[in-house]
Amino acid sequence: MNEPQPLTPVRLAMHAGPHQPEPSPALAELYRGFEQELLVPLWAEIGELMPPHPRSKATPHRWRWQRLLALAAEAGRLVPVGRGGERRAIALANPSLGGRPFATPTLWAAIQYLMPGENAPEHRHSQHAFRFVVEGEGVWTVVGGDAVRMARGDFLPQAGWHWHAHHNAATQPMAWIDGLDIPFAVATESQFFEFGRTQLSPAELTTPARSRAERLWGHPGLRPASMPDALPATPLLAYRWADTDRALAEQLALEAEGHAATLSPGHAAVRYTNPTNGRDVLPTIRAEMHRLRAGAASRTWRETGSSVFQVFDGQGEVRVGDTHWAVARGDLFVVPSWLPVRLQAAGDAALDLFRFSDAPILEAVHAHRVAVDPAAD
Amino acid sequence: MNEPQPLTPVRLAMHAGPHQPEPSPALAELYRGFEQELLVPLWAEIGELMPPHPRSKATPHRWRWQRLLALAAEAGRLVPVGRGGERRAIALANPSLGGRPFATPTLWAAIQYLMPGENAPEHRHSQHAFRFVVEGEGVWTVVGGDAVRMARGDFLPQAGWHWHAHHNAATQPMAWIDGLDIPFAVATESQFFEFGRTQLSPAELTTPARSRAERLWGHPGLRPASMPDALPATPLLAYRWADTDRALAEQLALEAEGHAATLSPGHAAVRYTNPTNGRDVLPTIRAEMHRLRAGAASRTWRETGSSVFQVFDGQGEVRVGDTHWAVARGDLFVVPSWLPVRLQAAGDAALDLFRFSDAPILEAVHAHRVAVDPAAD
Amino acid sequence: MNEPQPLTPVRLAMHAGPHQPEPSPALAELYRGFEQELLVPLWAEIGELMPPHPRSKATPHRWRWQRLLALAAEAGRLVPVGRGGERRAIALANPSLGGRPFATPTLWAAIQYLMPGENAPEHRHSQHAFRFVVEGEGVWTVVGGDAVRMARGDFLPQAGWHWHAHHNAATQPMAWIDGLDIPFAVATESQFFEFGRTQLSPAELTTPARSRAERLWGHPGLRPASMPDALPATPLLAYRWADTDRALAEQLALEAEGHAATLSPGHAAVRYTNPTNGRDVLPTIRAEMHRLRAGAASRTWRETGSSVFQVFDGQGEVRVGDTHWAVARGDLFVVPSWLPVRLQAAGDAALDLFRFSDAPILEAVHAHRVAVDPAAD
Amino acid sequence: MNEPQPLTPVRLAMHAGPHQPEPSPALAELYRGFEQELLVPLWAEIGELMPPHPRSKATPHRWRWQRLLALAAEAGRLVPVGRGGERRAIALANPSLGGRPFATPTLWAAIQYLMPGENAPEHRHSQHAFRFVVEGEGVWTVVGGDAVRMARGDFLPQAGWHWHAHHNAATQPMAWIDGLDIPFAVATESQFFEFGRTQLSPAELTTPARSRAERLWGHPGLRPASMPDALPATPLLAYRWADTDRALAEQLALEAEGHAATLSPGHAAVRYTNPTNGRDVLPTIRAEMHRLRAGAASRTWRETGSSVFQVFDGQGEVRVGDTHWAVARGDLFVVPSWLPVRLQAAGDAALDLFRFSDAPILEAVHAHRVAVDPAAD
Repeated sequence: MNEPQPLTPVRLAMHAGPHQPEPSPALAELYRGFEQELLVPLWAEIGELMPPHPRSKATPHRWRWQRLLALAAEAGRLVPVGRGGERRAIALANPSLGGRPFATPTLWAAIQYLMPGENAPEHRHSQHAFRFVVEGEGVWTVVGGDAVRMARGDFLPQAGWHWHAHHNAATQPMAWIDGLDIPFAVATESQFFEFGRTQLSPAELTTPARSRAERLWGHPGLRPASMPDALPATPLLAYRWADTDRALAEQLALEAEGHAATLSPGHAAVRYTNPTNGRDVLPTIRAEMHRLRAGAASRTWRETGSSVFQVFDGQGEVRVGDTHWAVARGDLFVVPSWLPVRLQAAGDAALDLFRFSDAPILEAVHAHRVAVDPAAD
Repeated sequence: MNEPQPLTPVRLAMHAGPHQPEPSPALAELYRGFEQELLVPLWAEIGELMPPHPRSKATPHRWRWQRLLALAAEAGRLVPVGRGGERRAIALANPSLGGRPFATPTLWAAIQYLMPGENAPEHRHSQHAFRFVVEGEGVWTVVGGDAVRMARGDFLPQAGWHWHAHHNAATQPMAWIDGLDIPFAVATESQFFEFGRTQLSPAELTTPARSRAERLWGHPGLRPASMPDALPATPLLAYRWADTDRALAEQLALEAEGHAATLSPGHAAVRYTNPTNGRDVLPTIRAEMHRLRAGAASRTWRETGSSVFQVFDGQGEVRVGDTHWAVARGDLFVVPSWLPVRLQAAGDAALDLFRFSDAPILEAVHAHRVAVDPAAD
Repeated sequence: MNEPQPLTPVRLAMHAGPHQPEPSPALAELYRGFEQELLVPLWAEIGELMPPHPRSKATPHRWRWQRLLALAAEAGRLVPVGRGGERRAIALANPSLGGRPFATPTLWAAIQYLMPGENAPEHRHSQHAFRFVVEGEGVWTVVGGDAVRMARGDFLPQAGWHWHAHHNAATQPMAWIDGLDIPFAVATESQFFEFGRTQLSPAELTTPARSRAERLWGHPGLRPASMPDALPATPLLAYRWADTDRALAEQLALEAEGHAATLSPGHAAVRYTNPTNGRDVLPTIRAEMHRLRAGAASRTWRETGSSVFQVFDGQGEVRVGDTHWAVARGDLFVVPSWLPVRLQAAGDAALDLFRFSDAPILEAVHAHRVAVDPAAD
Repeated sequence: MNEPQPLTPVRLAMHAGPHQPEPSPALAELYRGFEQELLVPLWAEIGELMPPHPRSKATPHRWRWQRLLALAAEAGRLVPVGRGGERRAIALANPSLGGRPFATPTLWAAIQYLMPGENAPEHRHSQHAFRFVVEGEGVWTVVGGDAVRMARGDFLPQAGWHWHAHHNAATQPMAWIDGLDIPFAVATESQFFEFGRTQLSPAELTTPARSRAERLWGHPGLRPASMPDALPATPLLAYRWADTDRALAEQLALEAEGHAATLSPGHAAVRYTNPTNGRDVLPTIRAEMHRLRAGAASRTWRETGSSVFQVFDGQGEVRVGDTHWAVARGDLFVVPSWLPVRLQAAGDAALDLFRFSDAPILEAVHAHRVAVDPAAD
């Protein structure tokens, strides 16, 4: 039943050092005993296992949107979409995570690309997912039979274990990004996946402007009285750009009028929430949109857990640890755990940044810490 | 600030297959482009990333207590305890987790060994920990200045970020097992560690029969009115064997009298809980004691997430997936995610098994699933 | 410190009856002893104290809006608004609650009336409150310095212990209803009240179309990232009719398309919620808007706790227990605990009904029960 | 269906006063209009309805145990126990609550008395209840078929809607106190009651030293793994004096050793909790045992909501508002909302006080406030 796994030997070496036992033939024999019995002593490992603060395996990295888009377009020509491969999704592989398709140790981020008329077949999985659209339109994602339009600026969460498929109803290809908790699910080994129908019904291939989910749940502060319970993930399947944009603009306007509204001067941010409990949209993923007023910079902060950002609009300067980048529309970058990050709008326009992170996981186990670095400002 | 990490290239190969794109020079060039840009297509990876159900990287394995104890005793002779190495702890390394000291993908289990008169220096860490004593006595663990006696059958939780040290006040060495969420903290990169004092004060080196924590919190159904809040981890620092034993005996007696009390016929189990919220003793670790009446077997069940068991008393037959073992006092074994497990008492006596698992993590993110296999019974 | 209260003697009488002790001189003397010692035996009272199901002290009753409005207008001419009386509010007095201004045993409902240019002075109280506007406009309620426009169909919650005042900036009088948990606070004796400033500042006497609260919190599924915590009461100070109307219309449209959305066929309803936790808008008050499609009737249901309804639009037939009424715009009626209620749209138009109830109190102590009466349909 | 209730007219009078409208014939006519329409203006009532702080309708009062006991014993001779009257319970009637059997506006307290060989018949009700035994033994309360011994110092909670009966298996009468949330249930009108069997089965009429509930749930920090869910009320049916006594003694001992454990110097207290969630034993009732070291006094504090105390042991001086009493074993007294209370041990012994209150109700709706009066110390 279990997948055959390569068995890996334990290898121990005697080291000289201030905190290490004196090398000796007896110690060497002890270490051989440990190896035979599949044992590893803490004293040989503690620095890496229990560091003074998080030292991420991941590396800060930026991916250029134009390059991603070009490769995705080429994949559109060469790679079919269909049952088995399931999705024409191309994932970011953090440079120091072993070549695996993991943007960070817990998060998956990919560009997905659908040609005109194509359908991505129905399936469901326990991993939580979302889509975010940096440009383009024409695709509908069909979740539990509910067709949801996708367009620039829209955030579309996809709670685990719901059937979903996509279809491109337009005459142009469309690209967007997918975010999932795949690496976290790999680490905790709690994944389930099922194939669904190959073909959606005609009723599901419609192209409504608003999904049924939005019509039921997309009213501020209101919920259907027929659905009174708290749900672990949001039932609202689309968070539209017009709402997000207005919320960010209002925060900056309120700040200008002298009221508390922003994270710090010039730095507005909204969090996408589950209207049934006011918490994060998904049990494992936090999603937010940030706006830095022209010329403004965020505080420099660090937090446990990791994030992926995508520039939605404008140009920026980003610093993560010792790394600096200039970023433009569509560019993606990752912020590993506990590295200081600072965001700044460049040029004459505001900088809009979509962000997702694993913060709900860490909060759920009381392991989330945030620190603002005064020295770094 | 970030630890230098080895950068790892992305390597992609064209495969022929029912769901794979047709190999071609253009595809090869596309794959080279992916590699250059640190991208990995989902269609090349989906089976491993999104399996139909959890396929653990870990392997079921059993460690023999007598062999562990002998190696730990030898380490007692050769390896000093002190600042830097911190603890004479020797960890179980699952055979298929790369030789790292991880019993399962999320759990650490180690034997710790302290010679007469030795002190393990004070430190604190964000990882949650506990000690469980299969035999011996004479060590006190000092948590936040509160000296807690350790003896056979006792379970001693140690919530993250509390100062703690150990001292052996007896004339004999003592061994016990430590359980921590180190691999989970490594995966989510949320660890903090600090060194404390090298020497405890005389007042802390006392050897009381009951800790202050027990005197405050160890009364059934009662809490100090001066401490009314829910805490994320238990303030009770020792769960004594006499209580656990009685609770298990009562479950079997109630069952014999015809009342619902056990998990299944002949299978009693208690869960260690946090008295301030009734939930698991630690935010990331569930701990339980199981008792199988002489001759009885558990149901065959599987669940997401992993467990480590230690035989506390008696002899048993254990089946995990396709693996079978005979187990005796002190033996440890691991149950990887979603593998069916069945426990059976062998011989004329009951089988007592201590168990810890990562279930609270999975429950916190709504990813815990349990299934009882009727066919396997 | 305590208010002098009239002391009330205990009076006991011997009754003959199947469950009563035999009258005798000795019993009479015992009863005199009880009276002297301020004691009452359960056997004399159990039927009333512990009925088989709730038998409300309150009576179903309807108040005609036109008559209320006329009296309120006359009060506008005769009764000044100002410090001391605080508000020109005229409360519904349930016919069987002793002449006290209690619509139900837990809920207060009043019509409030403000003349052009008038100001209701600032105060705060621990009682939770809201305003609902059945017609008119021109008044702004100023909550914590935030001026909130009031207009037909708007629901304006007012969490306890926030400073608030009202001012009529228009050339017409304006009336609305206030709902509070005053009777519940009287019953549980947990009320605090403070006078605020007599005059608002010019900056607070503005008349913005949207309050700061709406600008921060009035975006579907979004919250300010700077305010991440759950609050016991909603921070959103206005729920606008346009949103409520659209949500109700969508439910009926979805139902017509064959989807689950309504409470029962033709009966749409939305609940006003606290966006920080997805629960009721106030800790003690549930508020909802109901719409019955032309010709439709609700199910007949009963629940523990009480409700006050106001007709917002249309005409209806209402049955509460054995009482029937025809109701029209603005009419108010109460539904006592556990009495069956049935709502029906009359005429050719939909019937819109605003409702508030004490359900959150009962839910908080696990005492809320709802039953749908199949026989009554 | 509804009980016929006496209809009560509204009566309004014109008053002269600083905040009252000018008396006039027009005002008189307006007031007649209000009366006809069952309306009451706020300006005539606000001081009483919305006081600056709670002014309880209840009066501090003390009941002497010896007098209660004598009357209960006389009732034992004259009043049969049985179906209809249900219980030989004699309730405290607060002097200013209208002669009704309400100790406070939310709480019921009664002495119950059972003669040798008597049975109190089975019933169940939604009201939450408990028994506390100040002296005597010999009665078993049978809850859901589980016979629970009652003896001096035991606290026996009885969650709503569980079947229960009592039987006296001894040769002596026995008295104890019952606490319930009857007045709160009357105020919120959410009561259900059902008669059960007239006779318990022989298996239920046993007299075990420990109930099944204690055998399952009465182990500190342990819960049956077969029952993992949080329950709104405790499943533990007896909290034994030996445990309570030890917990109080330990708090005072820890204090003497210099550790934080007590509410204030010399004032120990434990709260009875629901082991499935760590919260109060019952959703509507908090129960605690307090111990004042010989010579010690509590702080003077006040809180919203009301309490009933019973002296369990020792002698004391109690101050509630402007009232002072000397109290001795068994005496009961009530503390109305927001009145300052101070407890002091008199004589050479410690003072033990059982207390129950409505705090969980107020906490559930975020209306609980506590203040310590420094000036009063």
